[in-house]
Amino acid sequence: MAAFRVDNRIGRTAILLVLNGEECISKEQLRQLKWKSCTGKVGSMESQKVVAAIETAAKKNGIIQPGVYRETHALYHAIIDAVSGVTRGQVQIGSVLRTVGLSFSIIRGNPYESEQEGDWIAVCLYGTIGAPVKGLEHETIGLGINHI
Amino acid sequence: MAAFRVDNRIGRTAILLVLNGEECISKEQLRQLKWKSCTGKVGSMESQKVVAAIETAAKKNGIIQPGVYRETHALYHAIIDAVSGVTRGQVQIGSVLRTVGLSFSIIRGNPYESEQEGDWIAVCLYGTIGAPVKGLEHETIGLGINHI
Amino acid sequence: MAAFRVDNRIGRTAILLVLNGEECISKEQLRQLKWKSCTGKVGSMESQKVVAAIETAAKKNGIIQPGVYRETHALYHAIIDAVSGVTRGQVQIGSVLRTVGLSFSIIRGNPYESEQEGDWIAVCLYGTIGAPVKGLEHETIGLGINHI
Amino acid sequence: MAAFRVDNRIGRTAILLVLNGEECISKEQLRQLKWKSCTGKVGSMESQKVVAAIETAAKKNGIIQPGVYRETHALYHAIIDAVSGVTRGQVQIGSVLRTVGLSFSIIRGNPYESEQEGDWIAVCLYGTIGAPVKGLEHETIGLGINHI
Amino acid sequence: MAAFRVDNRIGRTAILLVLNGEECISKEQLRQLKWKSCTGKVGSMESQKVVAAIETAAKKNGIIQPGVYRETHALYHAIIDAVSGVTRGQVQIGSVLRTVGLSFSIIRGNPYESEQEGDWIAVCLYGTIGAPVKGLEHETIGLGINHI
Amino acid sequence: MAAFRVDNRIGRTAILLVLNGEECISKEQLRQLKWKSCTGKVGSMESQKVVAAIETAAKKNGIIQPGVYRETHALYHAIIDAVSGVTRGQVQIGSVLRTVGLSFSIIRGNPYESEQEGDWIAVCLYGTIGAPVKGLEHETIGLGINHI
Ligand SMILES: [Mg+2]
Ligand SMILES: [Mg+2]
Ligand SMILES: [Mg+2]
Ligand SMILES: [Mg+2]
Ligand SMILES: [Mg+2]
Ligand SMILES: [Mg+2]
Repeated sequence: MAAFRVDNRIGRTAILLVLNGEECISKEQLRQLKWKSCTGKVGSMESQKVVAAIETAAKKNGIIQPGVYRETHALYHAIIDAVSGVTRGQVQIGSVLRTVGLSFSIIRGNPYESEQEGDWIAVCLYGTIGAPVKGLEHETIGLGINHI
Repeated sequence: MAAFRVDNRIGRTAILLVLNGEECISKEQLRQLKWKSCTGKVGSMESQKVVAAIETAAKKNGIIQPGVYRETHALYHAIIDAVSGVTRGQVQIGSVLRTVGLSFSIIRGNPYESEQEGDWIAVCLYGTIGAPVKGLEHETIGLGINHI
Repeated sequence: MAAFRVDNRIGRTAILLVLNGEECISKEQLRQLKWKSCTGKVGSMESQKVVAAIETAAKKNGIIQPGVYRETHALYHAIIDAVSGVTRGQVQIGSVLRTVGLSFSIIRGNPYESEQEGDWIAVCLYGTIGAPVKGLEHETIGLGINHI
Repeated sequence: MAAFRVDNRIGRTAILLVLNGEECISKEQLRQLKWKSCTGKVGSMESQKVVAAIETAAKKNGIIQPGVYRETHALYHAIIDAVSGVTRGQVQIGSVLRTVGLSFSIIRGNPYESEQEGDWIAVCLYGTIGAPVKGLEHETIGLGINHI
Repeated sequence: MAAFRVDNRIGRTAILLVLNGEECISKEQLRQLKWKSCTGKVGSMESQKVVAAIETAAKKNGIIQPGVYRETHALYHAIIDAVSGVTRGQVQIGSVLRTVGLSFSIIRGNPYESEQEGDWIAVCLYGTIGAPVKGLEHETIGLGINHI
Repeated sequence: MAAFRVDNRIGRTAILLVLNGEECISKEQLRQLKWKSCTGKVGSMESQKVVAAIETAAKKNGIIQPGVYRETHALYHAIIDAVSGVTRGQVQIGSVLRTVGLSFSIIRGNPYESEQEGDWIAVCLYGTIGAPVKGLEHETIGLGINHI
C-alpha cells in the first residue's frame, strides 16, 4: 500500500498506523510534524497486561518521560479510553471469559494549528476479541486521545 | 489514495471506509464478496439522533430488512457498541455537555471462511467529540460488530 | 393457573406476582406473612417516568411512608437496581432510542427468619424493551432488593 | 405446582423454568414449539466461572453448535446481559467481595409469529448474591435475550 | 488544628474525620449525637481487600452488628458507592493496573431531625490512586451514604 | 473555624475549600503556592447544567484560558470525574429522577515537588443528592484531578 498522507489528525494517523503498519508513514513526514510514534502487539486475558504493554512500549520508545507523572497520567487515561472502546462497557477481559489479540499504536504530537495546544497523545488498539478459542472472535478497535 | 485491498476483515474494511470514503472500495470488490455497505454523516448532541441516523441509512440502503426484528436487533446492538467506543464509558453526549460530529459506515457480509457463519454487521463511527464550540474537540472512533 | 405457594423468598414472589398477576397470591397468605404488595404498569421512553410510576404506586398503596426519607431512599435504590436489570448496563431508555413496556410489582416484608432483619423491599419489572415500533422488541426483567 | 401454559414468550418461559424447575414444562409442549432448553446451577465468586458454566451446559445439551461462532457469540452476549442483571451495574462478583449462588435456564427457539425471525436465545439466572457468608445474601435475577 | 464543629451532616463529618484524623471530633460531641465512628487505612491493588478492610473495621469497632444482614447490606452498598467515587466509573483497581493508598472513616448515626429516620451510615475514603510506582499518583475521594 | 494549613495536596485543599468556604485559605497562602482557585454553587436536575456552571466559573475566574483547548479538555475530564463521584455509577441526575444541590471548588496549581509536573486542576463537588423534594436527600462528594 502507498503511504497515506499524514495530516494533522493524530487519531486518524494512529488508526492507520495500527491497521497498515509502520511502513505507511515515512520517517520524513513524522520529522516534519515533530511527532513521535511506536507500535506493538499484546494478547492477553488480563486487562492490566494490555495496559502494561502499552506503557512499556511508550517508555522504551521515548514517547513519554517515565519520571514525569503528568506524562504517565496522560498516557494512562488515553490507554483506558482505548481499552474501553475495545471492551465496550466494562473494562474487563478474562474476568468475563474473553480474550484479546491486539496491535497498538501510540503517537505523540500537536494535532492543532495553535502551538499553544502543545502535545497530545493518541493510543489506538485494533485486533480481535472473543472466546478463548482460536477463531471464535470478532474485530474490535479503541482510540484514546489526551493532552499531555 | 489508491484503493486498499478488501480482505475479509469486515471491521477493518468498515474503519477504512469511514476514514477514506466510498471510492476506496470498488463496487466490483464488494460484489465479489457479496457484501453490502453504505456511509453517512451525523452531528448531534443527542445520542438517540446518532442511533436514528445510522438505522435510517441502513434501512434506506437495503443493508437490513426493516420488517425483520432480528435484523433491527443485530444492527441496534452493533450501533450501541460503536457509540460506546465513541463516548468511552457512558453512552451520553449532550447530557454531559459535549457534542459529536461523526461519519459512519455500515457493512453487512460474512467475514468468516465458513458459510455457516452467515452474515455479520459492522458499524464504524469516526469523527470528533468535544465541547459544543468549534475546534474544542478531539477525534474518536467506535466499532460495533454483531452477527445478523 | 393455580396459586403458587408463597414462601419467604420476597424476590421470587415479586417475580411471580409480576408474571402471573395479583390473583396468584391470596390476600390471606400475604396477611399471614404480614407482607404488603402492589402491582402496576408503565410504558415510556423516559427512565424518570418509570421511576416515578413505581414510586407513586408504592406511596398510593401504603407500601412506604412518603414522609420518611429512609423509606423513599430504600425504594429508590431498589427501583434503580431493577431498572438496571431491564436496561443492562446503562440506565437509559429513550436517550439510546428504545422504549419499554413494563409491568411491575412491589413487595415489602421480612423474607428472613430472624425478626431482627426487619422489612425489605423487592421491586420487579418485567415486560419488553426495543425499538419504538410495535413488535420490534424482546422481553426483559429486573429485580431490585433493599432493606427498608 | 401444575405445569404452566407454555406460550411464545421465551423470556417468561426461561424465568419460570429457572424458578419452578424442568418438570413445569412438558416435553410435549417444547416439542410442539420446536424449542430446546436446559437448566443448571453455578455458585462462584468468579464471573468467568458463571459464564463458563452456562456455555458448557448450552453446548453439552445441544442448545448451540460449538463450532459455529455466531451461535457462541449470540449465547455469550445473552449471558453477559443476564449476568449484568444479576450484578446491577458492574459485571463483577468476587472482585467486589461478593458471591453468587445461581440456577440458570437456557431456551432456544422462535418466540415471534413470523418464521423469518428465526431462533432466539434466552438465558435466565436466578439465585442469591451477597457476602461470602451463608445467609448474608438476597435474591437476584438476570435475563439476556439475543437473536441466534 | 482546632476541633471542627460536629453538626448533623454525617457525610461532611466523615470527610473531615478522614482528612483531619480522629482527634478532631471530641468523644463528648459524638456521645451527645449518639453517633459511632471509626477510622482506618488500607492500601491495595485489589478492590475486594478495600471492601474487606472497611467491613472488618466496622465490625471490630461495633459500628454494625455482624449477625444482622440488613446492617452488613447497608454497609456494603455504602462501601461500593464510596469505592466508586474513588475509581470513577469502573470499580476496578489492579485489573486496570493502578493501586490505591486510602484512609477511611465510618460513621453511624441519625443525621436528620426526625427520629423516625433512624440510623444512617457514611463511609468516606480518601487517599491516592495511581500507577503502582511511588509518587505516580493523585488524590481521590469517595463517599457512600445509606440508611441502616 | 481557624484557617487550615494549606499544604501541597491540591485535592484535600479543594475538598476543604468546598466544605469550609473561601475564608479558610488566606489569599497570601495561595499567592505563595502560585495557585488559583474559585468556588460556586449549582443546583439542577440536568447534568449538563452542572458541567456548564463549573466551566463558566473556571473561565470567569481566570482558572483556565478559554481559547486553549487543552485547558478546556483538562477541566472537562476533571469535572466528569467529580460528577461521577457524586452520582456513583451513572452520570445521570434528572433522567433517573433525582436532583442535586452542590457547592463546588476549582483549584489550579502544581501539587508536586518537581516543577516539571506543571499545573494540575482539582474540581470538588459537595452537597446533596436525592428526590426532587426538599429534605429527601443525602450528602454526596466528588473529586476530579487532572494535569492541565
Ligand atoms: Mg487520573
Ligand atoms: Mg437487545
Ligand atoms: Mg442514595
Ligand atoms: Mg461481541
Ligand atoms: Mg444488595
Ligand atoms: Mg477527551
